[in-house]
Amino acid sequence: MYTELINTGSELMLGRVLNSHQQWICRRLADQGYTVTRQVAVSDEGVAIQDAVREAMGRADLIITTGGLGPTSDDLTRDLIAQLLGRTLKEDAGALANIESFFASRNRPMPQSTRVQALVPEGAQVIPNRNGTAPGLAIPLPARPGSKHPQLLIMLPGPPRELHPMFQDQAVPIIQRTFPLNDDYVCRTLRTAGLGESWVEEKIALPLKPWTDAGMDLGYCARTGEVDVRFVCRGNDAKARVSSAETLCRELLGHYVFGVDDDTLEGIIVQLLKERHQTVGLAESCTGGFVSNRLTNVPGASEVFRGSVVSYHNQIKESALGVPADILQNQGAVSEPCAQRMAEGARRALGVDYALSITGIAGPGGGTPEKPVGTVFIGLASSTGTVVIQNLNRFDRETFKFVTSQQALNLLRQAILGIRPRGPNSLR
Amino acid sequence: MYTELINTGSELMLGRVLNSHQQWICRRLADQGYTVTRQVAVSDEGVAIQDAVREAMGRADLIITTGGLGPTSDDLTRDLIAQLLGRTLKEDAGALANIESFFASRNRPMPQSTRVQALVPEGAQVIPNRNGTAPGLAIPLPARPGSKHPQLLIMLPGPPRELHPMFQDQAVPIIQRTFPLNDDYVCRTLRTAGLGESWVEEKIALPLKPWTDAGMDLGYCARTGEVDVRFVCRGNDAKARVSSAETLCRELLGHYVFGVDDDTLEGIIVQLLKERHQTVGLAESCTGGFVSNRLTNVPGASEVFRGSVVSYHNQIKESALGVPADILQNQGAVSEPCAQRMAEGARRALGVDYALSITGIAGPGGGTPEKPVGTVFIGLASSTGTVVIQNLNRFDRETFKFVTSQQALNLLRQAILGIRPRGPNSLR
Repeated sequence: MYTELINTGSELMLGRVLNSHQQWICRRLADQGYTVTRQVAVSDEGVAIQDAVREAMGRADLIITTGGLGPTSDDLTRDLIAQLLGRTLKEDAGALANIESFFASRNRPMPQSTRVQALVPEGAQVIPNRNGTAPGLAIPLPARPGSKHPQLLIMLPGPPRELHPMFQDQAVPIIQRTFPLNDDYVCRTLRTAGLGESWVEEKIALPLKPWTDAGMDLGYCARTGEVDVRFVCRGNDAKARVSSAETLCRELLGHYVFGVDDDTLEGIIVQLLKERHQTVGLAESCTGGFVSNRLTNVPGASEVFRGSVVSYHNQIKESALGVPADILQNQGAVSEPCAQRMAEGARRALGVDYALSITGIAGPGGGTPEKPVGTVFIGLASSTGTVVIQNLNRFDRETFKFVTSQQALNLLRQAILGIRPRGPNSLR
Repeated sequence: MYTELINTGSELMLGRVLNSHQQWICRRLADQGYTVTRQVAVSDEGVAIQDAVREAMGRADLIITTGGLGPTSDDLTRDLIAQLLGRTLKEDAGALANIESFFASRNRPMPQSTRVQALVPEGAQVIPNRNGTAPGLAIPLPARPGSKHPQLLIMLPGPPRELHPMFQDQAVPIIQRTFPLNDDYVCRTLRTAGLGESWVEEKIALPLKPWTDAGMDLGYCARTGEVDVRFVCRGNDAKARVSSAETLCRELLGHYVFGVDDDTLEGIIVQLLKERHQTVGLAESCTGGFVSNRLTNVPGASEVFRGSVVSYHNQIKESALGVPADILQNQGAVSEPCAQRMAEGARRALGVDYALSITGIAGPGGGTPEKPVGTVFIGLASSTGTVVIQNLNRFDRETFKFVTSQQALNLLRQAILGIRPRGPNSLR
């Protein structure tokens, strides 16, 4: 089954607006077992819209458009598609009543320009809009030559607060009736931290070959400091096959797997600490509050996160964290003993079970031959002592912060789980 | 000129990842006077990529692809496009050397699988990757029948930290050489904070009518807490026309204009403080380090930013900032006197000229009828005393943090410039 999504909007072509519809709609469809084949976006110009829809009709079973159903002069989609299909537009009594009641319930007069939204191409099913005036439209069409599916064209309004409930509650059931799925469908993502993409593939690709040979789709998605492994499977035994693949993958990757699907490292940490009734705090220098910010993005973080000292200037490292002046003068702020003392000082000052410290050179300035830009020391103080790891994260400033925060949070996660850091980077 | 952007990635089709490349690339092209005609995204499957590129080649002058240049088995774009064009792949010595030095500089062994990234189709120009291993590729092609432009195919890596600098510094000049614009083109953005979109439009639209009547494009772009005003002009006198429009606009909007083009509020603040040899520090509660993080994203922030106390727990507000226990017990942590004492305590503890404090309820939990979710108090202590403003920012948790940070940074910017906060929100 070939599904194509078409978003219209000139502001998309100018890059003034982020197209969040694509991810939102594709995600909702994937949850139901439907995979979008192609996403297209074009401007509000008539030719561009008609070309995109005509081409999609030549190859797709399901075509979904968003936008262009409103009352203003650049809302052209409904007219253009009716013209393309050779269907006349007729005013729909139900759609008109919905527009009238929308304005009546707000005690506002109905502008005559909005009446155009009640026009419906012949043969189209009206999808009532419960949060606005422009109804959605579903047009069933005969199957393309050679296709085993009927063709369905769904037109949806652009504003998210109208689109989202209409899609979820009304459009998805129409899609499910038109394209019933015989097979089970499972999509599962394992999230890892601390390994590069090539290393993840080297560890799992060969052992998982029996699964991929049998039709399971195995995908990788690398972001800085994180690699996702995704299993997609269809068929009666999809659940069992994905489950056995996951078990093997977890064995191969061990504690590098930190979560599944929408889990975040910070979310997992807050959950682990909550379960253990433990607390965390930070002493951040070069990351400037970024790690604290990530932890406090998690709802309910206040149960486990007590606070941080962002000790950018050396005087703050001394006064707020008790780092001895001679360490700052002799070894320097970017050093193992400084990271150690920062973590221990934060643990004491904030009264927490775990204290993370981060000190390094984010750049672009400040590097030396001995300590180049990207050098970072990460400390972790807990009841069992203090560990410090050293890394070289040569990235732009914001990526440096992100990668360093991944390393720090992963060190914390491993400490909570009782895993000691290993390898050449572990100094203590 | 017809420009088509093709992003590849199965995770896009599954809605696991937001496609931020589209907006980013279209925005950079629009800044240079080029408008994208169509955006397409397809999965990593060979047929899907080849179909998309083949179709684009039939209608577009400039084709830009992102993704699929990496080392894993689902990175297929380079091979597929070489095949489509009937060109053989050869290992490029420069590209290989770049990959080798990438791993050498990180003291990591080079996985053999990464070597494939040095393969280059015949006739392609290699665009060196300064932030990763996969080079970009630019392939000049003969003009399509009937087109007055040559055809150019540019392939770029997917990771943003590799793509962004490569596109800006290397791909844009290639595009400009291949498709020179005859007209002068000026795109200028004024950035404002503290006003809503309709207020900005009401203040400037009518006075600027002579400019828009004469063909200048006037656009607004509203994000949470910020409104951009964009002037776009073509023709010989474009520069002079945009310049006079900017002068008038600045007169009408006054100090609400904080910068131009890619300026950020935090960047402007660091610059203002540097010029004045002044320092800043923060006491952050509900924003959890987010404002400190924004300030420390600015290169050179260490000259003016000394540090912060992220005082999430009330005990930290007492111990690190000296907020009296009776204020916390009687008025509560989310109150005007607490914000005042936090700012004054931070100014003292951090030894700074300006101390911002932020205390509020980010939600989703923690609201009361008197202090609903979204309530926030922002304090600013300086040598001239302490001001506190109160706002109600009813958003999800992360948007709450961003909007609150905009208000805090704008309060600081105005204080540095000697503008006192006005209006019903100003409490002190």
